[in-house]
Amino acid sequence: MNFEEYFEQDVHLSNSEKLRRKFGGNSLPAAVRYIPTTHNWESFKEKDVFDDGTLSFFWRAHTLTVLFLLSCTLVYVAILEPVIDDTQFNAKRGLVACVIAFLLLGVTQIPDGPFLRPHPALWKFVFCVSILYELALIFILFQHPDDARTLLKHIDKDLGKPLEERDYGGNCLIYDSTFPEDPWHNVWDKLDIFVPTHFLGWWIKTLMLRDWWLCTVISIMFEVLEYTLEHQLPNFSECWWDHWILDALVCNGLGIYFGMKTLHYLSMKPYHWRGLWNIPTYCGKLKRIAAQFGPHSWTDFEWKPTITLNRWLFVLVMIFVFLVSELNTFYLKFVLWLEPPHFLNLVRLIFMALAGAVAIHETLQYLDDPNCNKLGRQSWVILAITLTEFLVIAKFDWETITKPLPTKITYVWILGIFGLLGWTIWKFLLKPCSISSISLCTQENPDDGTGSEISECNSQVLKERIFQQSHSTAQKIQQNNKSTFRKLKKVKDYKPYQYECVEQETKQTEQDKGILEEDDNLNEFDSSFYD
Amino acid sequence: MNFEEYFEQDVHLSNSEKLRRKFGGNSLPAAVRYIPTTHNWESFKEKDVFDDGTLSFFWRAHTLTVLFLLSCTLVYVAILEPVIDDTQFNAKRGLVACVIAFLLLGVTQIPDGPFLRPHPALWKFVFCVSILYELALIFILFQHPDDARTLLKHIDKDLGKPLEERDYGGNCLIYDSTFPEDPWHNVWDKLDIFVPTHFLGWWIKTLMLRDWWLCTVISIMFEVLEYTLEHQLPNFSECWWDHWILDALVCNGLGIYFGMKTLHYLSMKPYHWRGLWNIPTYCGKLKRIAAQFGPHSWTDFEWKPTITLNRWLFVLVMIFVFLVSELNTFYLKFVLWLEPPHFLNLVRLIFMALAGAVAIHETLQYLDDPNCNKLGRQSWVILAITLTEFLVIAKFDWETITKPLPTKITYVWILGIFGLLGWTIWKFLLKPCSISSISLCTQENPDDGTGSEISECNSQVLKERIFQQSHSTAQKIQQNNKSTFRKLKKVKDYKPYQYECVEQETKQTEQDKGILEEDDNLNEFDSSFYD
Repeated sequence: MNFEEYFEQDVHLSNSEKLRRKFGGNSLPAAVRYIPTTHNWESFKEKDVFDDGTLSFFWRAHTLTVLFLLSCTLVYVAILEPVIDDTQFNAKRGLVACVIAFLLLGVTQIPDGPFLRPHPALWKFVFCVSILYELALIFILFQHPDDARTLLKHIDKDLGKPLEERDYGGNCLIYDSTFPEDPWHNVWDKLDIFVPTHFLGWWIKTLMLRDWWLCTVISIMFEVLEYTLEHQLPNFSECWWDHWILDALVCNGLGIYFGMKTLHYLSMKPYHWRGLWNIPTYCGKLKRIAAQFGPHSWTDFEWKPTITLNRWLFVLVMIFVFLVSELNTFYLKFVLWLEPPHFLNLVRLIFMALAGAVAIHETLQYLDDPNCNKLGRQSWVILAITLTEFLVIAKFDWETITKPLPTKITYVWILGIFGLLGWTIWKFLLKPCSISSISLCTQENPDDGTGSEISECNSQVLKERIFQQSHSTAQKIQQNNKSTFRKLKKVKDYKPYQYECVEQETKQTEQDKGILEEDDNLNEFDSSFYD
Repeated sequence: MNFEEYFEQDVHLSNSEKLRRKFGGNSLPAAVRYIPTTHNWESFKEKDVFDDGTLSFFWRAHTLTVLFLLSCTLVYVAILEPVIDDTQFNAKRGLVACVIAFLLLGVTQIPDGPFLRPHPALWKFVFCVSILYELALIFILFQHPDDARTLLKHIDKDLGKPLEERDYGGNCLIYDSTFPEDPWHNVWDKLDIFVPTHFLGWWIKTLMLRDWWLCTVISIMFEVLEYTLEHQLPNFSECWWDHWILDALVCNGLGIYFGMKTLHYLSMKPYHWRGLWNIPTYCGKLKRIAAQFGPHSWTDFEWKPTITLNRWLFVLVMIFVFLVSELNTFYLKFVLWLEPPHFLNLVRLIFMALAGAVAIHETLQYLDDPNCNKLGRQSWVILAITLTEFLVIAKFDWETITKPLPTKITYVWILGIFGLLGWTIWKFLLKPCSISSISLCTQENPDDGTGSEISECNSQVLKERIFQQSHSTAQKIQQNNKSTFRKLKKVKDYKPYQYECVEQETKQTEQDKGILEEDDNLNEFDSSFYD
């Protein structure tokens, strides 16, 4: 087999597979051999789920059916219906028709996203709606605030009126002895519709984030933000026990707890899909229908934010975006003059939960899957939406959002930010390679059939080696091996964090000289091919 | 390995691969073993093209860069720019911003289509524009004709005025002896800008259709349509020698000829892509840059419309849509009051050529590739566009398009349609399985490495068998083997034409009883799995 044939063969192979072929199974450079990720994406694709595909009619995109239905409607409008001579009515109806046509096109033509249940079309629909929402926000952003608020009257005639000022704050006594007939009345007052909403909201958020720590951090940070911003938005001002006990501990805490229980169940459940008509018993059919509303397969989200600096910063940005999006909910109501119980708020929340779930899944995959080198489409749109929402708020009520923070709050934030910065520097730049970054290598299970190369990554040996190594030694070795590192960077789709802990090992032991020389061949083959 | 493990393994395999695993390499049912297509899609994917991928920066979607640029613009509008108090200006600018944001989103997030050169983003852009065009057409369709024509004034202030009546027809003498100073003046009159336009147009259409016969049929059919519709649109009326000699023979014929020459060159050219920086010589770099504007790989379009009834009808529909789309060009100008040389016409033509090329590629793949079971996205949109354009014409000028055909023309069309219908019935329902449908099996080349199973398809033997077989015998055998056929239909993604000629062989020889019994196992495995 000559060179050309060889390369024609594996154009579609992954890069590591190409290297494997080039170097043979066992003589791969160490750093290429181990690609530690927290989720086994390869085996996930091949093994975790079985679907017999007998529901194929149900799953199909029905492109031609949808086109036919669309055509019928258009034929009716064009030929059968008498021409209507009302410009405004026509324009409105035309706009609605465009939106519907766009949704139909999207639902049939967009490729599947990460979620398939209850039907891929739902998630394509959510994506299309998120595009439309982003476009609507951009349109609103370009309007004068008064025009924008008037525009909302097309959706609901009662909108477009300034909100009434309300008296928040008030009495914070838990046991109010001045009201002998009902001393707990302050507590009962707070137990309104928002208690189950908080609880349910955090249940859903836990299902989206799939991590106890992340959820807790975000839940507490949001209470801190409420304290911070209560001088701007009066409905952030609550009693201390409402913040910490009712919200953070009871509602959010319970939501997160039940969310984690649900996650545990979902991650344990087998994902073997049989077509409805292939299930013999009546009870089995019912169960199958119910299962349609659960996930098609399961990905555990092991964020492990402190493995590498990259990952840490990424997770911080994600938390930031999540919190901004939550704040937007309240500020948008405020600047667009929407009453809190208005249905538009609820619609936005439901939609953001669905789109957010997809975005977070994509984000983890972008962070963790070595074969994923593009930010997901839903994440892109959600980022754009969050930003545009914030900009709409900023443009429409610049005065409110620029009200200066109270001095005490400013100090707390400066302290917090410096603490975070300091910890980040200490953790990732000063402290030597920690165990946690190595333990990943050792988590790969050789029994799953794909871990044959990883089995060499002996956890005990590695841990001891890393402990013995000080920061300065690591630096020296790093300089010696910079050339290796540069070469690795040339490999397509290389993401530094994938190799970071492994590289340490390569450098430290310096036993792989032979392999490093083979690594040099990587350059030779590039040039020899074009001589 | 138990049953479950076995099936978990190959969820992502093609159906034929699953069957191959189940039955073992050589004991596959005959009808499943041969899947004749006119293009080898599998080997195409794996072998035909080499790309070293060093241009990866150039190829990347740049999602985050685009998001950043979008954000900067939005931040400028929201925060830095003073609020503008002009509702109409704001609305217009907001609409333009929405269109740009949609295009940016589409260009970064849509997956690659069949074409990659000069850059995938171009083809994603074309797809997004086609969506916007379809949405604009739908919006126009919902308006009153007068409002719609007024709307066009937003694009060009000179639009929205009725077209002037023009005198077409005229003197058709080739040699006009009444003009002694220039007796050929009628011919010179016709040699205007439309001659090179016709020539170039057909060059491009040949590159789109990649088939001499299809191009010639469409070219002649269009001249027939011009004759048919000249009583509706005056600019269809031309002299006989202008129709047949100047247009059909000279301009279109030469365009098709050069198109075919270009196709021959493109199909012979090697497709080995090297990164620009990997090419040592200056001349090589220049060639590489030029090649960027050619295709990334090549698919020969062997339409072979008469192989099966399915394929024949499909190609007829395609020709029909193609012709309707060409007619729309002229009628749209007419109903929307656009002068022929207006830039909107040219923009539409260029855009339709680009989108049409993608759509035709997708159409052939849908027709021919056994793994493609969904009509392509661009085809979907082009179909919708052609229909909506027609409906806009029908709604805006119902009188013109319903002017009755002259009697002579009606007779010609009735004759033509009955001829086509008769030939179709004779060819596909009365005539026995022809050689052409078998020759496909034998075209597969066992030397290409993928044809090991196909090599058994011995052309000479097959041809003789088919010749001996009369129509009635075939029918009898067909009845005997209906059950086999039904089972085949159950196989997911089964397309009848793929098996038609093979089936004939299976039925006729009746020597594959053992294999048919194995085929029965197909049902057994379905049920045994759920026992």
